[in-house]
Amino acid sequence: MSLSSKVNKARVVFIPSGKRGYFPVGTPVLQAAQTLGVDIDSVCGGRGLCGRCQVVQATGEFPKHRINSKAENISPLNETEKAYAERPKKSLDAGRRLSCATKILADCVIDVPADSQVHQQIIRKDADSFDIEIIPPVQLHYVEVWKPDMYDPSGDLRRLREALEREWQLTDLRFGPGMLPTLQRILREGDWKVTVAVDYRGQVIAVHPGFRESLCGLAIDVGSTTVAAHLCNLRTGEVLASAGVMNPQIRFGEDLMSRVSYVMLHPGGDLEMTKVIREAINKLAEKVTVQANRDLDDIIEVTFVGNPIMHHLLLGINPIELGGAPFALATDESVRIRARDLDLTLHPNARCYVLPCIAGHVGADTAGMILAEAPHLREAITLLVDIGTNAEIVLGNNERLLAASSPTGPAFEGAQISCGQRAASGAIERVRIDRETLEARFKIIGCDLWSDENGFEEASYKIGVTGMCGSGIIEVIAEMFLSGILSADGVIHGSTAGRTARVVAEGRTFSYVIHQGEQEIHITQNDVRAVQLAKAALFAGIRLLMEHLKIDKIDRIRLAGAFGSHIDVKYAMVLGLIPDCDLQQVTSAGNAAGTGARIALLNHESHAEIENVVRSVEKIETAVEAKFQQHFIEAMAFPHKTDSFPNLEKVVTLPVETSTQNDLHTGKTRKKRRRSKS
Amino acid sequence: MSLSSKVNKARVVFIPSGKRGYFPVGTPVLQAAQTLGVDIDSVCGGRGLCGRCQVVQATGEFPKHRINSKAENISPLNETEKAYAERPKKSLDAGRRLSCATKILADCVIDVPADSQVHQQIIRKDADSFDIEIIPPVQLHYVEVWKPDMYDPSGDLRRLREALEREWQLTDLRFGPGMLPTLQRILREGDWKVTVAVDYRGQVIAVHPGFRESLCGLAIDVGSTTVAAHLCNLRTGEVLASAGVMNPQIRFGEDLMSRVSYVMLHPGGDLEMTKVIREAINKLAEKVTVQANRDLDDIIEVTFVGNPIMHHLLLGINPIELGGAPFALATDESVRIRARDLDLTLHPNARCYVLPCIAGHVGADTAGMILAEAPHLREAITLLVDIGTNAEIVLGNNERLLAASSPTGPAFEGAQISCGQRAASGAIERVRIDRETLEARFKIIGCDLWSDENGFEEASYKIGVTGMCGSGIIEVIAEMFLSGILSADGVIHGSTAGRTARVVAEGRTFSYVIHQGEQEIHITQNDVRAVQLAKAALFAGIRLLMEHLKIDKIDRIRLAGAFGSHIDVKYAMVLGLIPDCDLQQVTSAGNAAGTGARIALLNHESHAEIENVVRSVEKIETAVEAKFQQHFIEAMAFPHKTDSFPNLEKVVTLPVETSTQNDLHTGKTRKKRRRSKS
Repeated sequence: MSLSSKVNKARVVFIPSGKRGYFPVGTPVLQAAQTLGVDIDSVCGGRGLCGRCQVVQATGEFPKHRINSKAENISPLNETEKAYAERPKKSLDAGRRLSCATKILADCVIDVPADSQVHQQIIRKDADSFDIEIIPPVQLHYVEVWKPDMYDPSGDLRRLREALEREWQLTDLRFGPGMLPTLQRILREGDWKVTVAVDYRGQVIAVHPGFRESLCGLAIDVGSTTVAAHLCNLRTGEVLASAGVMNPQIRFGEDLMSRVSYVMLHPGGDLEMTKVIREAINKLAEKVTVQANRDLDDIIEVTFVGNPIMHHLLLGINPIELGGAPFALATDESVRIRARDLDLTLHPNARCYVLPCIAGHVGADTAGMILAEAPHLREAITLLVDIGTNAEIVLGNNERLLAASSPTGPAFEGAQISCGQRAASGAIERVRIDRETLEARFKIIGCDLWSDENGFEEASYKIGVTGMCGSGIIEVIAEMFLSGILSADGVIHGSTAGRTARVVAEGRTFSYVIHQGEQEIHITQNDVRAVQLAKAALFAGIRLLMEHLKIDKIDRIRLAGAFGSHIDVKYAMVLGLIPDCDLQQVTSAGNAAGTGARIALLNHESHAEIENVVRSVEKIETAVEAKFQQHFIEAMAFPHKTDSFPNLEKVVTLPVETSTQNDLHTGKTRKKRRRSKS
Repeated sequence: MSLSSKVNKARVVFIPSGKRGYFPVGTPVLQAAQTLGVDIDSVCGGRGLCGRCQVVQATGEFPKHRINSKAENISPLNETEKAYAERPKKSLDAGRRLSCATKILADCVIDVPADSQVHQQIIRKDADSFDIEIIPPVQLHYVEVWKPDMYDPSGDLRRLREALEREWQLTDLRFGPGMLPTLQRILREGDWKVTVAVDYRGQVIAVHPGFRESLCGLAIDVGSTTVAAHLCNLRTGEVLASAGVMNPQIRFGEDLMSRVSYVMLHPGGDLEMTKVIREAINKLAEKVTVQANRDLDDIIEVTFVGNPIMHHLLLGINPIELGGAPFALATDESVRIRARDLDLTLHPNARCYVLPCIAGHVGADTAGMILAEAPHLREAITLLVDIGTNAEIVLGNNERLLAASSPTGPAFEGAQISCGQRAASGAIERVRIDRETLEARFKIIGCDLWSDENGFEEASYKIGVTGMCGSGIIEVIAEMFLSGILSADGVIHGSTAGRTARVVAEGRTFSYVIHQGEQEIHITQNDVRAVQLAKAALFAGIRLLMEHLKIDKIDRIRLAGAFGSHIDVKYAMVLGLIPDCDLQQVTSAGNAAGTGARIALLNHESHAEIENVVRSVEKIETAVEAKFQQHFIEAMAFPHKTDSFPNLEKVVTLPVETSTQNDLHTGKTRKKRRRSKS
C-alpha cells in the first residue's frame, strides 16, 4: 500500500457544474474547487479578505453521488469567516461559507452560487435579446511581495512577478513600461501587499496598494449630438452610473457633413474636434465616477462605439476621406489603444477598445448594434435599423449579413422640419387625428396627459408646447394620411380645408395646424416632402439589401437608437419606413450601439466575435447601386392597397385613395387608384 | 512524363552559402535565391529600385558542382539595370547584376557579396573584441497598395495589409494605433506606393510614402556627466554621426548622490531631471541627424545604456530608492518603451530598448559593457572595470559571471583633487619624474609635446596648463612613488624636500609641485589620500569578486570608459588599482557601454542574450560583505615587493620601501619593511 493511499480522502461534488473528486481530509473547499477547475472567484487568494469564494453546503442524501452530505462533514464557521463578516460593508449570509476558510472533513456536496462565479450572466429585460455573458477582461489578484534584500539584490518588479507566480501560478506576465514610475511607491504604500489587475492576455494593467475589491470600465457611445457613458463594475456587470453630455463638436458643425466641411475649410480643424471630444469624454468620466462614488483611477477599461466620423475624430484621424467618394476608412479593424494615447485621464494604464467600423458610412455604432442584437446567431431573418442623419441598415441571419447606410437626412431627428426639434421636454411625440372632425390631439414629452384631457393646460403650462420630435412628426403625417388629409403621394388635400380650420392655405400649398398657442405647431407641404424623401431613402436601402439577399419577407425588425425607441412601429409601417412584417415582430432595440459597447466591455471574447462578424458582413454602398435610385423613387408614396404590406392591413384601415387633381399639387399627377377592401 | 518535368530547368549554386537547386529557365536569380533561403536583401521586392540584391556571376568550370558557369548562362544586362545605374547616387559596378532583373538561362554559379546579405558583420578594429553581427531589428518592404473601391469597401489599413501579404507573404502584422492618424495621408502622398518598416516580431513600426532606402537608429549612453549618441544605419551598421552633450542634470547636482539628494530635498525634483535629460536627448538626436543629413523621422529605433540612477530618471522613475539601503531597483529587467512615451520627438512610432540594470549600483551601462565585451562567451577569466564615481566590476567567464560596484568616489575623474579637472584641453594627462633630480615633465591634452620639449611653451600658450585629469593624477602619484617621493603607505616624504624644490611643506604635510605657471599644479598629501581611498575601494571590490569566484589569477583585464581609455595600464598596476596580470593582457575597452548600446541597436537577438546573462550574473553588494572592509584597508598601500604582483616586477622597478618615521605622517606608523630584489 502506497503512502498516499493511506491518507484519508473524502468525496466532494460541486454543483451546478457537477465536477467532483477525492481530496484529503482537511483540504480547503476553495483549493478542491480550483483543482477541479470549478468556476469560482477569488481575489485575495484564500486569505479570507475578498469574500468572493462564498459557497453553500448542500446537505442531505445525494444517492446519485452516493453521498450523505451532513452538516458536520465540513469544518464549522471559524475565526477567519467571523472576522470577514465583521468587516465594514461585508457580511456572510446564513448558510454561506468562505470556501477558502472551510475544510473538507468528509463526503460533501458544495453549491457554488452564481454570484461566486467568475463567469456571470446579465439577464436582459428585453425578452427579444440575448443575455450578456460576463467574461471579465481583467482579473484581480492580491499578493504579498517580498521586501528588497541587499544580500540577494533584485528589482521590485521581479519580486512582484515572483509573488504572482508563487501565489497565483501566473507566469510570463507582461508589465507595460507605464507601470514603472509608480510601482515602487505603490508597493511601499501598500506595505508590500498589492492587488494586481491582469488581463486575459497576461498583460498587467494596474497595481493598486493593499487589497482592492473591484475595478470599473466605461462603455461610451460617441454620437454626433450626444456622448453617453455607462460606468460598469467589471466583475458583476452592474451599471454603477450613466450620464450623457452634448458633443462639443456641435460648435464646429451641427451634423456630420458640416463637421467634415469644417475640416476642409480649416486645416487642423480635425485636431480641434479631436481635442474637444476627448475633453468631453474626460468630463463624462468624471461625472459618472462622482455619481458612483468612485475614482477615475478605478477605470481601467473603456470601450467605444460611434459612427465613422466620430470614430476617426476620436482616434485623431482626419475624417476628410469620409467626406467624399470613395469614402475610404483609415481602418475597418477594431482598435486597441491606451487611454492616455487618447488623452484620457483615467487609470494611467487604462486601455480602450474601439469597435470596428464596417464601411465608410457604416460605423462602429453599427458594429455595436450587431453585437447587441446578434442577428448572426439567429436563423430568423432580422432587419436592424438605426436612424440618425443616415440610417444604418443591417439585414440577414446566421448565414449571411448585409449592411448599408441610407442618406435619410435629418428629418427624422426633427431637423429641416418647420416645427421640428430634438426629442426634449415640450416636443410633441404622439398625435391622433379624428377621422371625422379632423381635429388633432397630442402628447408632449414631459407630460402624461393628452392635450384634450382635463388638466393638460395646467400640466403643460411650465413646459410649453415647443415643437415636434421625430416620432411626433411620423405620427402626425401618418394620421394625416389615415384621416384622408394627405394623399398617398404626399399632397395635403386643399379640399379638406372646407371640413376643418386646421388645414390652411400657404401660398399654393396647404398646411395642417396641430396646435395653436404661444407657438403654432404645424406640418407644411415641405415638411411632408422632407419626410417622404427620408423614408424613401430608408426604404430603398432596405429594399436593396433584401434584393441582394434574394428575400421578400423579413421575420423580425429591430429599431435602434433614440428615434427607434420612441417611434410607434405601426405608424412607421403606415408611412412605409419599414417593409411589411408581423407587427408583433417589430420592436425597439433601445440604444443597441451602447449596449454593444457594454458587451464589449464585459465580455472580452465578444471582441473576436464582432471582428469576425464585421469582416464577413457584405457591405453595400447605396451610392453605386443603380437600383437604389429606382427603389427610392418608388418608395416616395405612402403604402396603400398593395401586396407589399399584408400585415399593415391587419392593424390599420388604409384610406381610400383620392384624386389629387383638385389640389394645388405641383408634382406630376399620378394615376387615380381606388382601394378595394379585400 | 509529367508536364512539369518537360520544363527546361537549370542548376544554380549560390556561393558562399553553397545552397543550390534546379529552376525553370527564365527564373529571376532573386526568386531562386529566395526559394532556397539564401541570405539576400531586397527592399523593393524585385522592382529594380533598391539595388540591394546585387550579385556577381562566378564564371568558369565548377567541377564540384558539375557546372560550367558561362557568361551567357544568365540574361544580359537589361533596361531595368541600366535605369537603376542611372538613378542619382546609384551605380552598378562592373560585373554586378541586380538579381531581381537577371534571369537564369542555363547552369550557373552566383556569388552573393557580403554587402547584399541581410546579415552583415562589423569587423571591430580592437583585435581583442568580437565582431558585431548585424541582425536588423527592422526590415523595409516596398509595396503598391490598391486604391479604395466603393464597390468593395475596405479600410486603407486592410488594403495595406493585403499588399504586404500579396507582395511579401507577410501575415498577421500588428499595426500600432499610433499609425492610424497619418496612414491615409502617407498612402496618398506616396500615390499608393509606400515603404513599410516591419520589426522581427511582426510589428509595423513605420510607413513612409514612396520608396525608402534605409532607416536609422540611435545608440545612447546616458552618463551622469555627458550623454553620447551614435546615429547608425540600421542595415549596414555604419555610424553616420556621433555627438555628445553635457548632462543638464548637472545643475541639480554634480554627482549621482547629490542628484538623489536633490530629489529628497525637492519633491518633484525627479520630474525636473527627467524632463531635462529627455530634452537633452532630443537635442542630441537633432545634432546627429543634422550632421548626417537625415531627418528625425528616419530614427525608428533607440537603445539606451546608463547607470541605475540615469536609467531611472530617463524612464521617469523616482531614483530615491537607489539613494539608500537596500538600494532597490524599480526593475532589473530590460525595458521596451515607445520613444514618444519618453517625450522623444523622433519617428512617431520609434521604439526604445533600455538595457537591463543588474543591481542597485550596477546599471545598464555595465550590461552594455558585458554585451560589448562578452566575457560570458570566453573561457579566459576576464575582469571588466568601468571607473566612474563608482567602479563597476565584472569578473568571470563562460561558466560564472560576478558583478559588483565599488564606491571609489570621484577622485579618478579629477574631482576632490586640489588641481583635478575633467579630461579636457589643458589638463595634464601624462607625467614623468626623473628618479635622480625628482624634476617633473608632463603632457597636456591638446598639445603633442612634452613640457620639456622645445616649443612646448609656445604650443601650449593658448591652451594653458589648467589642471590634472584622472590619468595624469594616476601617473604623477605612481611616478612619485616610483621615484621615492611617496612611501608605500602614501606619505610624501618630507626628507625629499632637501633634494628638490618641488617638494614643499604645507603645514604639517608636504606637496609636490608639477608645474608653476599662471596656475600652480601640485599634488597634496590629501590628494594622495583621496586616490588611495579610491584605488583601495576598487581593488577591494575586485578582491571580493576573486574570492567569490575562488580564483587568484586573472587572465585578462579590460578597462572601459573614458578613464580606462586614457590610463596607462602600467601605472594603474603600480598604484594597485588592478590586480596582477600579464600586462599584455591589460587593455582598454574604450566606451564599452556605448558599444553595447550599438550592438543592441543592430542585433535584436542580443536583447535576449544580455537579458539572460544579466539574470545569471551573481550580484555582490560590497556594502554587506564584511570582507570588503578588510580588503579595503589592506589595499590602501601601494604595491611593493609582494607575491601579489609578479607581473608588475617585469615592467617597473619598485622602490625600496623607506621608513616613514621621519615624516609628518599622522596615520599609524607601520612596520618598516625592506624590499629585497628577487
